[in-house]
Amino acid sequence: MSGRLVVVGLGPGNPDQITPEARGAVGEATDLFGYGPYVERVELGAHQTRYASDNREEISRASAALEMAASGRHVAVVSGGDAGVFAMAAAVCEAIEHGPQAWRGIDVSVVPGVTAMLAVAARIGAPLGHDFCAMSLSDNLKPWDVIEARLRAVATAGFVIALYNPISRGRPWQLGNAFEILREILPATTPVVFGRAVGRPDERIAVMPVGEADATLADMATCVIIGSAETRIIERDGLPPLVYSPRSAGMLSR
Amino acid sequence: MSGRLVVVGLGPGNPDQITPEARGAVGEATDLFGYGPYVERVELGAHQTRYASDNREEISRASAALEMAASGRHVAVVSGGDAGVFAMAAAVCEAIEHGPQAWRGIDVSVVPGVTAMLAVAARIGAPLGHDFCAMSLSDNLKPWDVIEARLRAVATAGFVIALYNPISRGRPWQLGNAFEILREILPATTPVVFGRAVGRPDERIAVMPVGEADATLADMATCVIIGSAETRIIERDGLPPLVYSPRSAGMLSR
Repeated sequence: MSGRLVVVGLGPGNPDQITPEARGAVGEATDLFGYGPYVERVELGAHQTRYASDNREEISRASAALEMAASGRHVAVVSGGDAGVFAMAAAVCEAIEHGPQAWRGIDVSVVPGVTAMLAVAARIGAPLGHDFCAMSLSDNLKPWDVIEARLRAVATAGFVIALYNPISRGRPWQLGNAFEILREILPATTPVVFGRAVGRPDERIAVMPVGEADATLADMATCVIIGSAETRIIERDGLPPLVYSPRSAGMLSR
Repeated sequence: MSGRLVVVGLGPGNPDQITPEARGAVGEATDLFGYGPYVERVELGAHQTRYASDNREEISRASAALEMAASGRHVAVVSGGDAGVFAMAAAVCEAIEHGPQAWRGIDVSVVPGVTAMLAVAARIGAPLGHDFCAMSLSDNLKPWDVIEARLRAVATAGFVIALYNPISRGRPWQLGNAFEILREILPATTPVVFGRAVGRPDERIAVMPVGEADATLADMATCVIIGSAETRIIERDGLPPLVYSPRSAGMLSR
């Protein structure tokens, strides 16, 4: 007997940014798996059990959830933001590919959500208004030289860059190093947006030129958006500036 | 006297994917501006007026909305998906930058939403599970050689690519040309996902290798996701395949 597993994105943290579809999918599940702070955002019904785990245990969490679904339960795996962006949907797929054949028979679905970079961008204007990319700065699962080559490729080609997982206790130097690389390629005035815990009570937004970008302003709850050479800042009297990337952006090297 | 303007993302089309924040922002506005099919998704209250326009009139729509906000009204500009991704938030910022000084005094905000690529990705697994980029394939506002150079840069560097605005009546050859370019760089087996009108009654999803990718399967309502060399397909008996990009993706050229 095979149950169901749904991977759900709960948005960046503001309860008003959880879609009705995500709320419904969580409400219907019997068992909820997730990284502690995410799974604790959910109010439990009487029929529901919560299984919180550490954020570095994605594959073992996915496997435990799949095993429970295979036994006939209705399992939800919750992520912050969107479940498919540097989050649990890929870990669940990976566990299925390398797991027992029976897991391929589980009814798996994914419910999308508002991912962090969209919420950060909305707070400051429209920095993702033209071609952009999303990169994880974590070198736990890929070598740093791959990250460096990717940063160079997209900055040179004129993409705005959203950095996820910019910094952590175990990865203290990577973001500063990324800024060094980007300063070689981008004009020093290129705007950088630090968006921390957007939509939550401890939200903090900062904008500064890449020439002065300070990696210590970021923490694990921060998404960093680095503009392209064409990203603009509109200063406004008595109001915060607007940062946006024009729809007609060209290429840096032109 | 200066009013308010909010740019709102209504999600990909499934009403269950509209956030409560977006629904609330639209409900509070006195005047709604948008491309016809988007603004018509909104049920009007007795106090509300709708101004629908053509989809190629973004700047004039933004200017009309700003002018009305400047007169003291509470205006909402609605977009499909997320308002900041190839949508109205950038057009509004652009109009403010080049418009009358008074527009800089308007209380402008942006409400994020689920953008198309996230909804398409969720339907098929987790193709955006690792580093990815989002590009508009429209050469109305940037030259084709910029688009071509960007495609080459990101495919070579190992990014998954989400293409917005892949095709239209006035731009019939660009997507086929993009596939030709990508076939020079990516293995022929690299998965391509066509996601059309996801979450709506006329939804259609297709997966095929880039070697066989057929541009005529796309239309204006389609978001096309092209995997990296590491994107995987999990075949399942009696269930649709899962497409995902592993969290540990490396680089094509390694």
